[in-house]
Amino acid sequence: MSKTVGILGGMGPKATADLFNKIVDFTDAKSDQEHIHILIDNNVNIPDRTNFILGKGDNPISELIETAVRLRDNGADLIIMPCNTAHYFYDKLVDAVGVPFINMIEEVGKYILKHYGKCKVGLLATLGTYEGKVYEKYCGKYGIEIATPSEEGKKKLLDLIYRVKAGERDFSLEYINGFLREFRENNINVVILGCTELPLVFDPLKKELNDFDFISSTDILARKTVDIAK
Amino acid sequence: MSKTVGILGGMGPKATADLFNKIVDFTDAKSDQEHIHILIDNNVNIPDRTNFILGKGDNPISELIETAVRLRDNGADLIIMPCNTAHYFYDKLVDAVGVPFINMIEEVGKYILKHYGKCKVGLLATLGTYEGKVYEKYCGKYGIEIATPSEEGKKKLLDLIYRVKAGERDFSLEYINGFLREFRENNINVVILGCTELPLVFDPLKKELNDFDFISSTDILARKTVDIAK
Repeated sequence: MSKTVGILGGMGPKATADLFNKIVDFTDAKSDQEHIHILIDNNVNIPDRTNFILGKGDNPISELIETAVRLRDNGADLIIMPCNTAHYFYDKLVDAVGVPFINMIEEVGKYILKHYGKCKVGLLATLGTYEGKVYEKYCGKYGIEIATPSEEGKKKLLDLIYRVKAGERDFSLEYINGFLREFRENNINVVILGCTELPLVFDPLKKELNDFDFISSTDILARKTVDIAK
Repeated sequence: MSKTVGILGGMGPKATADLFNKIVDFTDAKSDQEHIHILIDNNVNIPDRTNFILGKGDNPISELIETAVRLRDNGADLIIMPCNTAHYFYDKLVDAVGVPFINMIEEVGKYILKHYGKCKVGLLATLGTYEGKVYEKYCGKYGIEIATPSEEGKKKLLDLIYRVKAGERDFSLEYINGFLREFRENNINVVILGCTELPLVFDPLKKELNDFDFISSTDILARKTVDIAK
């Protein structure tokens, strides 16, 4: 029997559904009963992570801890959180919960080290993830160096991410290419989709953007979860 | 603030993820916080519903009740269940839970009555749903008459459904058309996708099968949930 996985979700809801879908797709199962028992709290009451990190919103930590503790108390043997920015609070969450909690950002770091070695990669993420130095903290230890867009590029990217959260899905290739221009100019062709809303936009455009290797934090978390849970 | 929705899921996992996705897509929200708070128990320990109805498997009722009660005790104001066959146990579940519980099958009946009037429609479903007379019971009261495939067709359909549960997605148009032949011959062109695995197969083929109106039980449940929860 598999472990019971708790998904601390709602950040955002579509990204949570995307992770759930991918876990199901990546599970080798011949019947309903061979799949993984998953508890999801799509908790939309968690305050915006980026706003707090930028000093202009409520602290989400108490709602994050309460949600994780509820998942644990309902039987989750393992907790995962499909929100890169929320990993700013990872250490405090782990202290509070006391069951295994996969660090998605570290898993991305390990994946890059394994497949590309120590190298410099591009990061597409929220302003909260950039300002909170989430990737520098958890990937730096694996020798991964993080390249980020210009300040103007970061702001435009945050706008894209919030448009995805608001339900937009169809963006032109030209618009999406705008976020990659600086990486192209600097010969960076491995790029982390370091916000769980981004695979929703980039996955359908992968063929057209095949001069890049995109590292989807959602995919890596889904595969790691299946590995551990089964 | 929206109601908290509890999804009694895992029957199967991919169908549960499909419903979750559709609820998110159908919700008019400009930010994470405007979405619906959803608790999902993707409980893969619920015994197979069809096997029990056919007299060859464990009774799933106690696991169904326990899951629904857990969702309620965790704050669900409303419970939904993306499994047509499991609605065979609907009355017992409602008695046990004591919070509103949408009957997906009745919602399909109301939808057909509203859009087509009292009429005869085709039903694609599991053997458990056919044998348990789930649609006859909950749609009959709206004047909907149910047409079913031949015994051989029903068995082939169950095989398709279990292949979807096992992860298969790509089926030829010819193969899928085989399930519609009898309906075509009898001039039935409104067909209920009365198993939540079926939209996973039929949604991508809708254009090619446009001589039918398919009624997706998943879509109807998702829309009704958004209406009530928001």
